Amino acid sequence: MSTTEHHFRSAGETENLSAALARFVVDSRWEDIPTAVVREALRSILNFAGCAIGGSQSQAVQRALRVMAPYGGPPVASVFGRTERVDIFLAACFNAMSANVLTFDDTHVPTVMHPGSSVAPPLFAWAEEHRVSGQDFLHAFVLGVEVCCRIGRSISPWHYSHGFLITSTCGVFGGAAGVGKLLGLTAQQMTWALGNAANQAGGLVETLPDMAKNLAVGQSARGGLLAALLAAADFTGGEQPLEGRFGFANVMGQQPDVSQLTALLGERWELLENAYKPYPTGVVLHPVIDACLQLRNAHALQAGEIATVVVRGNPLLGERADRPAPCNGREASLSVQHCCAIALLEGAAGLRQFTNAAVAQTAVVELRQRVSLTADPAVGVEEAHVEVRMASGQRYTKHVPHLRGSLQCPMSDAELEAKFVDQTTLSVPGFDAVQAIEALWRLESLDDVAVLARLLTADGG
Amino acid sequence: MSTTEHHFRSAGETENLSAALARFVVDSRWEDIPTAVVREALRSILNFAGCAIGGSQSQAVQRALRVMAPYGGPPVASVFGRTERVDIFLAACFNAMSANVLTFDDTHVPTVMHPGSSVAPPLFAWAEEHRVSGQDFLHAFVLGVEVCCRIGRSISPWHYSHGFLITSTCGVFGGAAGVGKLLGLTAQQMTWALGNAANQAGGLVETLPDMAKNLAVGQSARGGLLAALLAAADFTGGEQPLEGRFGFANVMGQQPDVSQLTALLGERWELLENAYKPYPTGVVLHPVIDACLQLRNAHALQAGEIATVVVRGNPLLGERADRPAPCNGREASLSVQHCCAIALLEGAAGLRQFTNAAVAQTAVVELRQRVSLTADPAVGVEEAHVEVRMASGQRYTKHVPHLRGSLQCPMSDAELEAKFVDQTTLSVPGFDAVQAIEALWRLESLDDVAVLARLLTADGG
Repeated sequence: MSTTEHHFRSAGETENLSAALARFVVDSRWEDIPTAVVREALRSILNFAGCAIGGSQSQAVQRALRVMAPYGGPPVASVFGRTERVDIFLAACFNAMSANVLTFDDTHVPTVMHPGSSVAPPLFAWAEEHRVSGQDFLHAFVLGVEVCCRIGRSISPWHYSHGFLITSTCGVFGGAAGVGKLLGLTAQQMTWALGNAANQAGGLVETLPDMAKNLAVGQSARGGLLAALLAAADFTGGEQPLEGRFGFANVMGQQPDVSQLTALLGERWELLENAYKPYPTGVVLHPVIDACLQLRNAHALQAGEIATVVVRGNPLLGERADRPAPCNGREASLSVQHCCAIALLEGAAGLRQFTNAAVAQTAVVELRQRVSLTADPAVGVEEAHVEVRMASGQRYTKHVPHLRGSLQCPMSDAELEAKFVDQTTLSVPGFDAVQAIEALWRLESLDDVAVLARLLTADGG
Repeated sequence: MSTTEHHFRSAGETENLSAALARFVVDSRWEDIPTAVVREALRSILNFAGCAIGGSQSQAVQRALRVMAPYGGPPVASVFGRTERVDIFLAACFNAMSANVLTFDDTHVPTVMHPGSSVAPPLFAWAEEHRVSGQDFLHAFVLGVEVCCRIGRSISPWHYSHGFLITSTCGVFGGAAGVGKLLGLTAQQMTWALGNAANQAGGLVETLPDMAKNLAVGQSARGGLLAALLAAADFTGGEQPLEGRFGFANVMGQQPDVSQLTALLGERWELLENAYKPYPTGVVLHPVIDACLQLRNAHALQAGEIATVVVRGNPLLGERADRPAPCNGREASLSVQHCCAIALLEGAAGLRQFTNAAVAQTAVVELRQRVSLTADPAVGVEEAHVEVRMASGQRYTKHVPHLRGSLQCPMSDAELEAKFVDQTTLSVPGFDAVQAIEALWRLESLDDVAVLARLLTADGG
């Protein structure tokens, strides 16, 4: 019998799935976490921090702050990218909203959820009120991501395609498990924490374009923190909140695969299937942008001499992103024409290429009109073919089989750093990104994570 | 064309359902509310207040308070039945938890949700921070109940039987609409308030016996308040949060009947289908208790001379409540044997008859053993047959066709008052129930509802 089978069977025989998952979190030791997983946790937290600072000036966050901050408690925790200090629940909420507002956060590929945005904020908030070491923080983050992604797997893909906002509905469990680990909950309390999280799980796809979506993600971070704190006070949350007949998986899933909750626990790690977006656009556009950037660089293309650009991609590309004349940055982030134009003209597709001003530039407007799109079911969603025809008659073609940032073609550490710099300095002029990046990579050796949290504010603490 | 048809068609032609429901709330004038509806609102609020004070000493509320109060903001709002003052979000949360913790709150019969617990607390909390007249309060309460019950209807009965905790999932909309009315939201903002509520809708039946259930109800009250305040700051929540393809009804319902959202709006009033529980037990036991009390009173039965008690009821009675030897008050509230024994012995079935001490009394234990139960599918769940056989050989029988507290046999105002006195004085010794009842009935004429709110605390403000 392999170790795997042994693990799985003994869990099945002796305790239910919620309890087995809870016990795994409670019993986990730092030494059990593989180095590669710790490394990916660092990358995810770096990416989260950049997104949180990058989104911190958004209208959604500003309005939520204006409404909620006056009702806040002891202002001990940081709002990343800003100068306000708020209570730990509000900090968890606002930092999660910020991190998710540009949809530039990490993506757990098997579920398409964004675990960093729900899991990191409650941990940072707690760490500002109670001294937490970098190692304990990373450990809790790894476990939080593990729990929420496994729960997400048990109900995917139906849950999201049916209309539940998986980042918020499942994210709440991650914060509960992670903070619960920091609190040293017993296995019974950890099960209750999952139950307390389950009863706060919500969020609907209908509001994806609206601020309410960010509220759901903010609430998932706040709710996870609350779930764990309540469980620590023996606030009971049931024994089978995940797999029970009327529990999360059965009620918010369809024919859920609850074996995912514990399969290969401790051997397969969800963070190793986490990816990062290089561009602030719909993910279907990413291979197209990759191709344009590569063509520009390989052939030193002069955009003024381009006659036409022909994109051949999966039909989904046309359904989601055929927008020849986007009116603003938000629409441009879902326009294949804009993405091609900006990548070929500017050799970049970062936040600066999706401002309202960038969208209105004459050269960009003109080049967008030269882009055409062909739907080809034989092309996968993760690939694209782009052909650039020059005024001279010369043609250049590029096929991208796997978008950059995918598991097959991951963003490098340097690319993540560049993304961090781009996001943070655009959002907070004068932000010391170098100092923050250095502290983020050194997280494991920090005695007190609060020091790092303060470096992520607009005034550096 | 009747007025009804006109109302419905014009809504269908010119705007979507979320917007139509939002506009109804925004446009509603006090004069539009029928007197009978206002009267039922008063009864529901009286019942809510008694339940909130009655549940205020529960472990769930105590533990939540201990965990959450230290993170609270400006302490301007009352926790009913207690002496603490907390911020308005926490007050909404705790008062909702208290009101629902004994499951003694009101029941909207078509959906079995408890609207009072989610709708009243955010309104009271807001009214303690901003002067609100009794008339405006009642108006907002009527509209809040209307909105959440209509949304509940659109997805009933599937939603609850599938495993969603309808009191919390739908209750959040009631607080949003009610507080939104007090805030004077525009129709657009009111639609957003519904969207902000939709994204916080959660709660699972799995945790019915656990404190997490109370958390879900508390969160629904907090979430409704937050949804409205955010909408007032133009925090957007989508245009079709209820009926959209990925909106609340489609995602959390199965083949929802969204016409219920606006059908007969302004003509049919949900509060007129609201009922109140006379006993703190599962509702299936109510007709049995009715029969026992009526037999005892009609024949001046001496419990010591009873040989056997034979109950004939719907099979559901046996499935849910066949517990000959309950160990504690919670189990006794789902024991047909205990309910018969206590009603015949003590002539009452209030909170005092379901304490752990009451359950352990020798005479009660003995009489429980003489109770037998026959399942009869021909007997409806709302009715019961009870036969008492005396040691002398004398037999008495009683058939109750409609449980007391049902829409067919509603609790009188005097009975609601007695329930209020019973709950409040048991929970808060020395509580001035007479003064509170008087103020509650006079709610419509109050200049400032905060005065009433303070009368509902343990120290009378």
